[in-house]
Amino acid sequence: MFCRLARTARKTLFSCIQQQQQQQAQQSRPGLVRTYHTGSVHSSTTTIAAHSGTASSSSSSKKKRFYSTTAETEEMAAPVNTTDRLRQLRELMSMAEHNVAAYVVPSEDAHQSEYVASCDERRAFISGFDGSAGCAVVTGKEALLFTDGRYFLQARQQMDSNWTLMKSGLPGVPTWQEYVGGLAAGSRVGIDPTLVSATQALELRRKMQAKGVQLVSVADNLVDRVWGSRRPERPLNEIFVHDVKFAGASHADKIVRVRAAAAKAGADGVVVAALDEVAWLLNLRGSDISYNPVFFAYVLVTADSVTLFADERKVPDAVRAHLQGVQLQPYGAVFSAMRVAAAGRSRLLAGASASWALAQALEDAGAAVLPESPLPMLKAIKTQAELDGMRSCHVRDGAAMAQFLAWLENELRFNAGHLRLSECDVADKLEGLRRAQPQCVGLSFATISAVGANGAIIHYSPTRGSDALLDVNQMFLCDSGGQYRDGTTDVTRTCHFGSPSPWQRECFTRVLKGHIALDRAVFPAGTSGFVLDPLARLPLWELGLDFRHGTGHGVGSFLNVHEGPQGVGMRRNYLDAGFQHGMTITNEPGYYEDGSFGIRIENTCLVVKKQTPFDYTGGPGFLTFEPVTMVPIQKSLVQVGLLTPDERAWLDAYHASVWASVSPLLEEGSLAYEWLKRETSPI
Amino acid sequence: MFCRLARTARKTLFSCIQQQQQQQAQQSRPGLVRTYHTGSVHSSTTTIAAHSGTASSSSSSKKKRFYSTTAETEEMAAPVNTTDRLRQLRELMSMAEHNVAAYVVPSEDAHQSEYVASCDERRAFISGFDGSAGCAVVTGKEALLFTDGRYFLQARQQMDSNWTLMKSGLPGVPTWQEYVGGLAAGSRVGIDPTLVSATQALELRRKMQAKGVQLVSVADNLVDRVWGSRRPERPLNEIFVHDVKFAGASHADKIVRVRAAAAKAGADGVVVAALDEVAWLLNLRGSDISYNPVFFAYVLVTADSVTLFADERKVPDAVRAHLQGVQLQPYGAVFSAMRVAAAGRSRLLAGASASWALAQALEDAGAAVLPESPLPMLKAIKTQAELDGMRSCHVRDGAAMAQFLAWLENELRFNAGHLRLSECDVADKLEGLRRAQPQCVGLSFATISAVGANGAIIHYSPTRGSDALLDVNQMFLCDSGGQYRDGTTDVTRTCHFGSPSPWQRECFTRVLKGHIALDRAVFPAGTSGFVLDPLARLPLWELGLDFRHGTGHGVGSFLNVHEGPQGVGMRRNYLDAGFQHGMTITNEPGYYEDGSFGIRIENTCLVVKKQTPFDYTGGPGFLTFEPVTMVPIQKSLVQVGLLTPDERAWLDAYHASVWASVSPLLEEGSLAYEWLKRETSPI
Repeated sequence: MFCRLARTARKTLFSCIQQQQQQQAQQSRPGLVRTYHTGSVHSSTTTIAAHSGTASSSSSSKKKRFYSTTAETEEMAAPVNTTDRLRQLRELMSMAEHNVAAYVVPSEDAHQSEYVASCDERRAFISGFDGSAGCAVVTGKEALLFTDGRYFLQARQQMDSNWTLMKSGLPGVPTWQEYVGGLAAGSRVGIDPTLVSATQALELRRKMQAKGVQLVSVADNLVDRVWGSRRPERPLNEIFVHDVKFAGASHADKIVRVRAAAAKAGADGVVVAALDEVAWLLNLRGSDISYNPVFFAYVLVTADSVTLFADERKVPDAVRAHLQGVQLQPYGAVFSAMRVAAAGRSRLLAGASASWALAQALEDAGAAVLPESPLPMLKAIKTQAELDGMRSCHVRDGAAMAQFLAWLENELRFNAGHLRLSECDVADKLEGLRRAQPQCVGLSFATISAVGANGAIIHYSPTRGSDALLDVNQMFLCDSGGQYRDGTTDVTRTCHFGSPSPWQRECFTRVLKGHIALDRAVFPAGTSGFVLDPLARLPLWELGLDFRHGTGHGVGSFLNVHEGPQGVGMRRNYLDAGFQHGMTITNEPGYYEDGSFGIRIENTCLVVKKQTPFDYTGGPGFLTFEPVTMVPIQKSLVQVGLLTPDERAWLDAYHASVWASVSPLLEEGSLAYEWLKRETSPI
Repeated sequence: MFCRLARTARKTLFSCIQQQQQQQAQQSRPGLVRTYHTGSVHSSTTTIAAHSGTASSSSSSKKKRFYSTTAETEEMAAPVNTTDRLRQLRELMSMAEHNVAAYVVPSEDAHQSEYVASCDERRAFISGFDGSAGCAVVTGKEALLFTDGRYFLQARQQMDSNWTLMKSGLPGVPTWQEYVGGLAAGSRVGIDPTLVSATQALELRRKMQAKGVQLVSVADNLVDRVWGSRRPERPLNEIFVHDVKFAGASHADKIVRVRAAAAKAGADGVVVAALDEVAWLLNLRGSDISYNPVFFAYVLVTADSVTLFADERKVPDAVRAHLQGVQLQPYGAVFSAMRVAAAGRSRLLAGASASWALAQALEDAGAAVLPESPLPMLKAIKTQAELDGMRSCHVRDGAAMAQFLAWLENELRFNAGHLRLSECDVADKLEGLRRAQPQCVGLSFATISAVGANGAIIHYSPTRGSDALLDVNQMFLCDSGGQYRDGTTDVTRTCHFGSPSPWQRECFTRVLKGHIALDRAVFPAGTSGFVLDPLARLPLWELGLDFRHGTGHGVGSFLNVHEGPQGVGMRRNYLDAGFQHGMTITNEPGYYEDGSFGIRIENTCLVVKKQTPFDYTGGPGFLTFEPVTMVPIQKSLVQVGLLTPDERAWLDAYHASVWASVSPLLEEGSLAYEWLKRETSPI
């Protein structure tokens, strides 16, 4: 799955002009804008995925080709009435103890997570808008929602007349930071210091001060006060141990390495705030946030202690036994507990996701807090067991995908499935097949199952009741992944089960050429995905085409499907995260034709050493990508004449490896087996 | 010609490890390290080139295969005795008015030029070492010369025992900045503020202050005082007008654009310190520095005035007439004159090459001085006349190259030229042929004419008396260029006039594949050469090979052969200079096998709009490279089987355009004509 964080998307978009075009295109086809949310299964104790896990037939038996604005409006819930909520919030804002002219409600949680739990959906509660990206600012008279072009329609539909939509990215529209910075000199602007990173808050405060406006840390979350008893409880799902046979290194080993890195950086300790870093470090997993097997916690590692800040009700005996030598402190009072634990430390590495509140607590304890951390890079470089696990789970994932695609082709071609199967139906079918695989514990993100023009909406995710029916005459784009005990998968395939047009085949082939060019690249260790990115785009650029998202992201090992610091794309921070042996990366160029079809071909890859005949680097050596995704790339969509001999050889070799690894998992003679044999035969 | 500035080379080297290897390799073959210098024709009034312009036979009639250390030592001049010079310098340093514990002697001139005039070769005078890169630091007891691995041997041979060679880049060796920063707290370190940029000086001063060491601006150059009457005069060569028919825009037009850019940046004016920027802005040229048609001057542009600071003895009546409305002020007292001219200005753009002294003078006048300037980008984007001129002069340059290569092949194959022609001889022959072309006024840099293993020494330039003889059994690398009234050329061709080995052909073909990949790229306007650089390296990376220099640099229009801000390579500043229509760029990947051979294939290209069937950018559009160099790429060095059909088609199309443009300039039936016909026929 491409990175679709708002802040990511904005940076990876090709240019502002493109972004505006996209926004305009989306505005002109309002029915195609969909809500993306991360599901609502927050109270289950062991499952991760949001979907039910069983296939169910569409609620609509009549095929809907695409959606009219009318249909869309009818299907959407009426806007939430926020009048009372805003009145109460403004009362709190004007109280002497707060006295803020404006209050900022970000969409992040206290760990700067990409996905948040429902108890952290404060911006959705106060504004009604539940899209994944956006920031609300409430003043005495105004209520403003800042979001980007992907969400203009949804925000307008979900918000009542109390709210003004601020269309980020359009000319003349300020960012929320610019807006609050432009308030009358002397104004106080409040924000919950747990919901903004220290780096962002200090930068913002500095800029605002230059204009005489003050950023005020409001410890008491005012939206939570308004939300009151209606606010969902913070999940208390049990934490569980991630077996060292999958992790490849004990948490004791990891702590040794973290301490060494801290010492090297001249620091007294490392604070871990990002949830996937906590889970990685202690070889623990949880289920507090959909799709991400993480749990709410912080860790402080010093030279002589390791402290886990987590709600003790979440910590079963098995985890306590696993964590011998690790002190347990409450999550609820983490900042005061952190102050005590950090006492006497002079320099702490806290990483980029440490909140302003956390940094303040540590600074109160007398420590200098640095926005750097060894954790992201240590986590990014997988152990041998993790690499093996990634290879292994992708073979099982490939078996599920083969069963799915064989079934789907059969349904569409021979069972008139296109008259009854909707995008949600087939996503459910795929989830069921994936969950039936050994070690699978759920999905790694909400499946993108998109027919025809829906495939061109990059952030599309179907919603039952408004999802399209499959169509043998339309392209079908499916971006999905699973969480397995031994790894996380992420794969996109685009198929056409009828007769694709020559233009669709040309576009597919150009996307494939870009995919192959990136996959085949051999490059010196340390080369960044920033400079390799054009390889995936050149065949499209040749025609004046492109795609508006990053080309690749890191993938966790039974962890978040998006992880850094490496990536392939135009984000400058990739420059400082050159590739090293043992990293993971997706390779997912695409092409999207508004109102018509979308194409994306995504493999998850390992970054591995390449034995070259020579080594000009004199040591670090050369690297290449090893695709671990084991799913055929539809040959009938390839215009073979556009491929070079090397590219044809790549495709045949890839398919041979898919057949060799996946066919043993399929029953000989089964639909999936025969389908796989046909789809992996030489082109 | 690849960028070979020391600061460039260090940054474009692939890694420190590689650099060290290279250094070690060079150390182990000491006889192959050569002095590079820019010639000595500084007093001529109208010529630019250093060479005599006529071919002369080698001083040695006996073929020398390569050089022994002994031969090298014998041929090199004895080290200069610097005892007296250092004693005098130390006396000046200890005088109360200076009182500095250390004195820094940089290699730059007051304009931060890449090439300097002989009167500015202060570091060579004080140390004896005349390589193009290095910095001398003299303390009461020590005399240290800091230079990089390209010059270790030369520096050791040229310097007497007073001097200690500091091998920059080797582990544990400080930079000169680190060295002076590490002197005893309280020390004063002197430097001539005209010879260091303001940005560098202020950064250095800040770092030194943190260690209690003070950087002191010594207005009086102490080396010049020691040098005294022996110091060459600053050139007084006449400035001449660069015809607007070649420039494509009058200097009045350019001044309007500079003023508009200044106003946009909220500045009161622009100070121009870089010599090529002065020449570009006023449509003037000179001959004060070898190869670069520039003259010593500064310009100050404000909203209501333009002032040229130049020695009035250099300004003939024709230039005075051309410069109506431009005030002339003396060069000698530029800083005091600048203080007067800048009075009342509050913000001035001075660019990165403004010296510390210049910035101080402007600040004394009350102005804030910003290290930015619109000049580099305005100069980089050529006018239509300049683009046409570049195309036109490269055709004439191609005719000279055809005559040269046809003559050389004939000499080597049929006239036993390999028994008598040296690297300098053939460079002189080429210079003569180039100078015979209409509008040619000299060379754009010292010709790199390198046989066999000499071709593997990236910074090699032959010196008469120690140059190798041509050899029909060796590769021959020739990197050369001319200055024409309508443009500047830069071309490298690698040839083998006998039977190249399969390995040499494979390497040549991989370099060619990289060259073609970069040349064929179509990319969105604004894409930087930083991300396109890997295209030129991938075919080498595939085998674990690489080359240790940048892939491309901008080329001036009858100006410096190296100009920015754009470039193709690993320097991060290229990121901020995305390609725009009208820029120039060289495409020059290479491969160098120490002790054996070197390959480089260089075309100068224009960056031009590409009409694509679609335009995903919604306005800025797509770009590609248009090669203007018109010289065949030797087909007998190509392993055709390694080329894709597209690459073969590229080579044939390129050769067809070479034939179409160059053949009309050659006499039908002549040696060059027949050679060109054969060399440009389809592969």
